[in-house]
Formats: sequence, C-alpha cells, structure tokens
Amino acid sequence: MKVIAADSSAAILDEKFAVLSIVATASVLVGSPYREASAFLAEPIFVDAEKGHDVVVHEAEMCRDLLAKTKADVVHLDMSLGSVSLEELSPVQFSEMGISAKARYHLLRVLPRLRKIGNEITQKYGIEVLAIGKESVPVRIAELTSGAHAILYTCTKAFKEKKVTLLGLPSRCQPRFVGKGVYLYSLMPAEHDVRGYAVDTEEILNKVNISEFLNPSARGFRALKINPKEAE
Amino acid sequence: MKVIAADSSAAILDEKFAVLSIVATASVLVGSPYREASAFLAEPIFVDAEKGHDVVVHEAEMCRDLLAKTKADVVHLDMSLGSVSLEELSPVQFSEMGISAKARYHLLRVLPRLRKIGNEITQKYGIEVLAIGKESVPVRIAELTSGAHAILYTCTKAFKEKKVTLLGLPSRCQPRFVGKGVYLYSLMPAEHDVRGYAVDTEEILNKVNISEFLNPSARGFRALKINPKEAE
Amino acid sequence: MKVIAADSSAAILDEKFAVLSIVATASVLVGSPYREASAFLAEPIFVDAEKGHDVVVHEAEMCRDLLAKTKADVVHLDMSLGSVSLEELSPVQFSEMGISAKARYHLLRVLPRLRKIGNEITQKYGIEVLAIGKESVPVRIAELTSGAHAILYTCTKAFKEKKVTLLGLPSRCQPRFVGKGVYLYSLMPAEHDVRGYAVDTEEILNKVNISEFLNPSARGFRALKINPKEAE
Repeated sequence: MKVIAADSSAAILDEKFAVLSIVATASVLVGSPYREASAFLAEPIFVDAEKGHDVVVHEAEMCRDLLAKTKADVVHLDMSLGSVSLEELSPVQFSEMGISAKARYHLLRVLPRLRKIGNEITQKYGIEVLAIGKESVPVRIAELTSGAHAILYTCTKAFKEKKVTLLGLPSRCQPRFVGKGVYLYSLMPAEHDVRGYAVDTEEILNKVNISEFLNPSARGFRALKINPKEAE
Repeated sequence: MKVIAADSSAAILDEKFAVLSIVATASVLVGSPYREASAFLAEPIFVDAEKGHDVVVHEAEMCRDLLAKTKADVVHLDMSLGSVSLEELSPVQFSEMGISAKARYHLLRVLPRLRKIGNEITQKYGIEVLAIGKESVPVRIAELTSGAHAILYTCTKAFKEKKVTLLGLPSRCQPRFVGKGVYLYSLMPAEHDVRGYAVDTEEILNKVNISEFLNPSARGFRALKINPKEAE
Repeated sequence: MKVIAADSSAAILDEKFAVLSIVATASVLVGSPYREASAFLAEPIFVDAEKGHDVVVHEAEMCRDLLAKTKADVVHLDMSLGSVSLEELSPVQFSEMGISAKARYHLLRVLPRLRKIGNEITQKYGIEVLAIGKESVPVRIAELTSGAHAILYTCTKAFKEKKVTLLGLPSRCQPRFVGKGVYLYSLMPAEHDVRGYAVDTEEILNKVNISEFLNPSARGFRALKINPKEAE
C-alpha cells in the first residue's frame, strides 16, 4: 500500500518562544516499510500562526500535485477525525466527535475547499482521502520532511536578512546534519527509524551557525538558533 | 514480590492492516528486577477479533495453571480497573469507573467466570488477583512474551498454509531474532530493558522470510510480513 | 532566557511499593540549551506522603533563596495550571480549569502563602512566577536534580539506620553512578540529553550496595534497593 500524505511544520519563534509563523509544507509518497519518503514536494510558506487553520487546504493541494507525478493507493491528511473519508465527512459528525466550537468553526470554513480537492482526487485517481491525522505514520513523515526543509528555508531567510532567528521544530524530533543536507529524526517512542530529509542544494548550511536547544516552556519541543555568518 | 500475569497479543492483519484474529496468550512469572519472565506458559489461540472479549477468562486460567507449577505473591490481569481485587470488583463500580456501556456489557458477561477462577486461586494459594491492566509491568511482559510466541505460531501457520501472512505486533515493540528464538523488546519510554522471549524449538524461523514494517495507519505499531520459503 | 524552577521528588516505599514519604526538594537555575542545572539548592525533606500538598510552598521558598544568589528571567513552579502567573491566579479560575474538588481544596489552602512568596519575588526582582508545571523543562530538571540528591540522602539514612530501604525514583528516569556522584537521566521521549546531578561529598555511595528494578505495579517508574554494607 502506497500512501501520499502532507503536513506543515516548524515555526519561527520570538525571543520568548512564542510562535510567529509556520514555515513549510510538504507532501510525501511513502511505501513499505513506512520509514521515510520515496518522493516529495516541499514549499516554504511562512504563514502567520494566527492564520494557520487554512494550511490543510494547501496540504491537500500538494497531495494532489504529488499524485500527478506518482501513483498511490490512499491519501492521508493531517486532520485527526477518526480516519473518516473526506467524502463522508459531514458537519453533523463534528459535534459527535467532541470537537470544540472553535475548531468546528475553522473546519466548517475550510471544508468546502477541502471537499473540492478531495472529489477531484477521488474522481481522477479512484482513491480515498482520509482525515486520519495523528494516527498516520506517513503524516508524521510529511511533518518531518517539511521540518527538514523548514530548517533550510529558515537558514536562507536568516542569511538574507542578516538576522539571528529562532526556529521551533516539530514535536519530539532532532536534526542530524550530514554532508549534503539535513535529516530530521523522530524521537517519539517506537519511531527511532522514522525520519524526514532535505537536500541542501544551495549549500546554505555553510553560511550559518546553528545551535540546538530544548524549548524550556514546551516539553518535547526542540528549537534551533540560526546565526548567519558574516558575508565576505 | 513475585508476580504472575497474563495477556494475549499480536494479530493477523488483512492487506489493509485491519485486525482479523488475535494470535497468542501467555502467562508469566516475573520477579525482581521485573524485566523478563523467569517461567511462562504460552498458547496459540487465533481467536476472531470480534470475539476477543473473552480472552481475559483464558488469561486467568493460564495464570491458575502457572500457579500450579510455581509460587507467586499476587496475580495481575490485563484489565485496567484501578488495581482492584477481583473479589472486590462489583458491577456497581463499573459506572463509577467511567467505563463505557459497551465495555461494561462485555465485562458483566465474563465477570462470573473470572470471579470463579479468582476465588479458586485465592482459596488455594491465599493470594489476590488484581485487575491492574496497563499499570502492570508483568502484564507488559506477558504481552511481549505472548507476542514473541505469536511470531513463531504465525510463521508455522504461514509455512503450513504456504501463504504470505501479515502479523501486527503489540504496541511499541520490536523483535530481535537470535540463534535459537526471538526476543520482543519494548520500545515504550523507560522500558528499554523489558522484553519477552520465545524459543524456536521447531526451527520454523529457518523456513520463512520475515520483513518488518511500520503500520502506516496506527502509529506506534509495527508489523511483520511473513513469507514462507519454498518447500524443497 | 534563564529560568529558576523547583520540584520535590523520589519516595521511600514500603515492601509493597506504596509511597511512605517524599525525600528531597531542589531549586535549579537552567539556561540555554536547557539540559541541566548550572546552579542549584537541594534539601532532604522526608515529608509524609499524605502531607505532600504543602511542598510546593517550600519549593517556592527555595526558588526565592536561589534568586538571592543568582539572576534569572522567570520562575517556574511545579503546578500545572496553564502557565498562568501566580499574581493572576484566582480561585475562580480553578473551576474553569477543570481541577477536581480535592485538588482545589489543597490549592486554596496553600495559595495565600504561595502568593506571598510570589509577590516578594516579583517586587524584589521584577520577574514573574509561573504555575507551568509539567510543560516546563526546568521543572523536569529540578525533579531530576532533587531525585539525584534523594538517592544520596536515602543512602545516608539507610546506612545510619542499618536498614535495607526502597527508594522510588521520579517517573521515567534512570541513575548512572559516576566516580564522584550520581546522574539521574530522563528516559522520557525526546529528553535523552536531560539530566540531574548530585555530588557525593560524603562518599556515601561506597557504604551501600544499590540495585535497580522496575516498579511492577506502576509502569514507567523505577526504584532502588539500598542495602547498607556492614560497618567495619
């Protein structure tokens, strides 16, 4: 079974570790043994955290775009609604699912657009789009893949703006910098072999100093301090 | 303090990773430092997942059977009911414990048989039978021990039926195949030294190819694809 | 950002692993990368577990005492009340926070004393005292630091009383004994590099035998059996 999934992750933080903006979105193709992506699309988004409720629509679009390039058997979206198919998802269910009024409000606002993309995918490729969220390993791999790219995007931004920048990473993961890019490894229990990856095509990692620390006010979250080197 | 505990675990999955049947039950004797079993009984059960509510009765019987062979100070059953003794467990408490109507229905159905075995154990050996469930390390060791045996039982079944078989493992664990059998190590936080074990007396592991993968739709769960080698 | 935090931890257990008394309190100064304390105060308390609700007052006092020696930007207390400032914490909020009647009773009893210390800190140093609890990494480091000291205090007690003693450690951690003291490492996911430390100034570790085991009735908790060596 091949799965396409998408997620957005990593956040620019202020000096008090409050979230300012969400950095990147990625869609991934994941096949057995479901440890990493075999294909992906990634994009910088830098979306205001307050307006983050709409990113799931863009995530669905990026799943659709990846489907245009490669086959899959099912699509996993980062919405934790009991693995129900987008087609079957109705506003009536939201109250049964115990979703808060505020979350319901945001869901109802994006649902028409989500459904449109869902229908497009189902009609064209004959596969389901599931609101599976946190139960999905491919969604986690999409989170780590977008997180790995977010590191590179934020390094580029920090270098261009000549500004020390704090980047909050996804929950329970840790970067490992290798010659040509960066892996983002899961630190969740039983996910020691799950990871995302981004290639540093522009060699931006050579132009910044990066130090890792734990977010003191949010257990399980790590952050990076990205310090541009002097331009020569 | 020596503890006898039992649990059933591992499941045959269909190609969409849905649970078809529960594979094995084990009772274990566990003493300090509570990392693995010092004695055990294990059995293949291959019970229809729909009828899985009764396995706890068989688990209690296997605790009783192990008690006939070895001493212990207390029995732990895989029922998460606040460590209350079976003797003191009354239907009135179930509603106080916030147990769902459906779970209560199944509990009430098995309670008379459970109590009978509990009384038998308490009268004969003077020890308590506790409904401690997920709080118990010995129950976890029983889960891992039945899981390790489930791997061997499923290999035998796959080999006999000449059929590729998917086996879903217990939550957050990973097998390690050694010369004479298989360990099943916990991947839960703070359980890195907790494991189950099964001896491969029939050398069935030589007759199959096994590959491990993550269950894409259930985070924390791993599964094995068991492929019988050609009979010669 | 430099954080001062405090916590109490580790418990003397009876032979059935029931908690008898809480052993130690520590306040810590933690700066980036928030992995361990750069300064601390630690004290044996051996408080009856039944009367443990008041320890948070002593924890606040020990934060104040550490602030008298070193600068910090904020104080984290081990009260999980949504990171609200002590100044803004009002009894009305407790019901909104879904705190149980019993917990509310104990909170109301200690609140006047807590507020007094909080005001003292805020007026003298101009920094906030937050009821952040389990979300705080520095509170975790205080827990591990008090736990490391609790090991030494309990060894001293066991040696003086010539009595085998069981010490229950904080959740999900494990000691590592080194030449001059003991580290207590977190075993929580994504906290593999977080730890507490205590220096064995009295070389008490040479006077006892220590064995580690898992608490069979409380998953995630480890305990030590401390056995005084014969005095010569």
